[in-house]
Amino acid sequence: MTSGIISGVTTPQGFRAAGISAGIKRSGERPDASSTDTAGPLDLALLVSDVPATAAAMFTTNLAQAAPILVCREHLARSHGVARAVIVNSGCANACTGDEGLQAARDMAEETARLVGCPVEQVLVASTGVIGVALPIAKIRHGLPAAAAALSADQGGAAARAIMTTDPFPKEAAAQIAIGGRTIGIGGMAKGSGMIEPMMATMLAFVTTDASVPQPLLDRALREAVDDTFNAITVDGECSTNDCVVLLANGAGRGIVDESSYGEFVDGLRTVCRALALGIVRGGEGATKLVTVIVTGAASSDEARRTAKAIANSLLVKTAIHGGDPNWGRLIAVAGRAGVQFDLSRAAVRIGSTVLFDEGRPHDEAAPRAAEYLKRKEIDVSVDLGVGSATSTVWTCDLSADYVRINADYRT
Amino acid sequence: MTSGIISGVTTPQGFRAAGISAGIKRSGERPDASSTDTAGPLDLALLVSDVPATAAAMFTTNLAQAAPILVCREHLARSHGVARAVIVNSGCANACTGDEGLQAARDMAEETARLVGCPVEQVLVASTGVIGVALPIAKIRHGLPAAAAALSADQGGAAARAIMTTDPFPKEAAAQIAIGGRTIGIGGMAKGSGMIEPMMATMLAFVTTDASVPQPLLDRALREAVDDTFNAITVDGECSTNDCVVLLANGAGRGIVDESSYGEFVDGLRTVCRALALGIVRGGEGATKLVTVIVTGAASSDEARRTAKAIANSLLVKTAIHGGDPNWGRLIAVAGRAGVQFDLSRAAVRIGSTVLFDEGRPHDEAAPRAAEYLKRKEIDVSVDLGVGSATSTVWTCDLSADYVRINADYRT
Repeated sequence: MTSGIISGVTTPQGFRAAGISAGIKRSGERPDASSTDTAGPLDLALLVSDVPATAAAMFTTNLAQAAPILVCREHLARSHGVARAVIVNSGCANACTGDEGLQAARDMAEETARLVGCPVEQVLVASTGVIGVALPIAKIRHGLPAAAAALSADQGGAAARAIMTTDPFPKEAAAQIAIGGRTIGIGGMAKGSGMIEPMMATMLAFVTTDASVPQPLLDRALREAVDDTFNAITVDGECSTNDCVVLLANGAGRGIVDESSYGEFVDGLRTVCRALALGIVRGGEGATKLVTVIVTGAASSDEARRTAKAIANSLLVKTAIHGGDPNWGRLIAVAGRAGVQFDLSRAAVRIGSTVLFDEGRPHDEAAPRAAEYLKRKEIDVSVDLGVGSATSTVWTCDLSADYVRINADYRT
Repeated sequence: MTSGIISGVTTPQGFRAAGISAGIKRSGERPDASSTDTAGPLDLALLVSDVPATAAAMFTTNLAQAAPILVCREHLARSHGVARAVIVNSGCANACTGDEGLQAARDMAEETARLVGCPVEQVLVASTGVIGVALPIAKIRHGLPAAAAALSADQGGAAARAIMTTDPFPKEAAAQIAIGGRTIGIGGMAKGSGMIEPMMATMLAFVTTDASVPQPLLDRALREAVDDTFNAITVDGECSTNDCVVLLANGAGRGIVDESSYGEFVDGLRTVCRALALGIVRGGEGATKLVTVIVTGAASSDEARRTAKAIANSLLVKTAIHGGDPNWGRLIAVAGRAGVQFDLSRAAVRIGSTVLFDEGRPHDEAAPRAAEYLKRKEIDVSVDLGVGSATSTVWTCDLSADYVRINADYRT
């Protein structure tokens, strides 16, 4: 049983969070419009579990891994999958920053561990922002005590805002599920707007639960939930150097997840991850529409996913949808070049429920109906490859001139 | 010995061409601004060799192959690689148009064969424009006699304009090479602006030579020249349903190409193909800059090419270059996710001749110099993967808000 409730990482019991302004975001970066903090945009988030939590994490598969990713991997190995705190800054990715960057990420964890009162390997670190710029560690050291002092079970929203970069709004989600008469809370926050095609990992996302979950099961659940959520979205086909998703299970509630209740737990986790992932797409750089790409009739799940990703990353598909143009030929052209099995004579294209091509022939007379449908904010497009029975669903957004504007002068 | 001369498909001896208005282009499509024909935009091109020419061709690898592609394959097989004429229309791709579309492509060839006075299998057919719309074969039939009547050795320019769709200018190139004291002329025309990443084939390009070249050698030469030219460009990563490049060698001159002169011939052919290919990129939809992407230090040529293509298709790289932002971190991020061997500690990034990252550290102090360089119209960016010694060069353009505008309402 799953129900959406409006809250985030502090919804599960035993988690506190904070989001403060440490002065890391440069004046050129988009300020957090929703912040009322006159000190500047929120840019430092702290998430703490009252007790050591079981942790699972997935990291970017980009070979240019940022310093915080390297520190997280090291800490999770040393702590055998236990974490108390996560410290996150926006405004600087601390990526491609050499040995100094690695030391800065370690210092950030060290200072957090001292304030929280836990071993340093129980602190996870994340950074997001411009690549190749030195992390202003003095500002983080200076801001950390204020973040620790602000920790509260009602500051999840501030934390969600503090991890934003070009995001137009914060992404939070939570769910409650009942397992064996006991309620389990699951909550999360995420950031991401551009450089989004997590592929085999994801952007920054932090998910909490008050259930007690053995580490191997937690790990499996995270991978399974991420596969159909964070790994099924794309804004611009770009996989970042800093992608990570962290799941903390602190057992502060009374729910226990074991093999028998695993399926329900994964469903709840997927609900929270999907809400966060779709939030990222809805808030994609320059996005005006949420697009659900459904591929059917594929020879395998892998081919279905590959085709759906190719369609979701197609500039011509994304611009046509932006312009409300039912140019279904572009969908067929992408399917034909996706490197998968494809049969033009048995393929079909639908925009919404309107069939525009099937049995080898166009139904261009239906184009006006599809054009009307494309005025909506949430669009389904589906392509049947005419080969087998495998399917895949991927979410993306349209491509607008605003994407170009945002990214043509991100740093200047 | 190669020298560029300003002309196109009719530069080699024994070729005539024509470009006329047959009323195929819809009013919504961009008119051919350079046309002085008050009858409407040029949209039907005819290219004829005075004598049967040896032909080689490469076609799109898209599995959704347009009707004219199917007819060309069939005719080349039946004629054993001999062609007299090529008929091309713009304004309609005749793709995904079912049996009617196939019949229309056959009718177009049939009518051309009758007018030229050759067997139908010696006629090649190409179409470019909107996918999924029926070819107005009556208009083509009506226009063909005028095209045949207009055939001339000085109408190559009209033919080059008649094959344009969203192209901002026509693409023509020619070269003369001397082999064994005999001069060989090579000429060509191409169209293409969007839906450009030919990958293993190419867009519409027609190349002529008056040399006498055995078919197997002609075929090999075309593949070799295309690999480093048309197959090394991308505007938007989209492989079309109608891509084709045709090379006709009519032996009307006195030059003969054999194994001993093959290398010089390929060099000349590559010169013409590169000029046409770079013309396509320069005239890419919304393009304001020509970008040369050079990847070095790769483990293999294939990995070098794959990385160069990934960089050339990266929205974040293309928008940064558009905005003149020396955001080199995006180049590293793409190299890291390109699925190739990559060593961050030995990698390097250059914009022009300015090193912005090497030996694991940023040189952000050099960013102002790179920003100054990025104001140019022709930009080199290079990434060394720090692994091996293989290299690849790929050409692309920047991504502007105009690309979005052009493609958001291509049909409406």
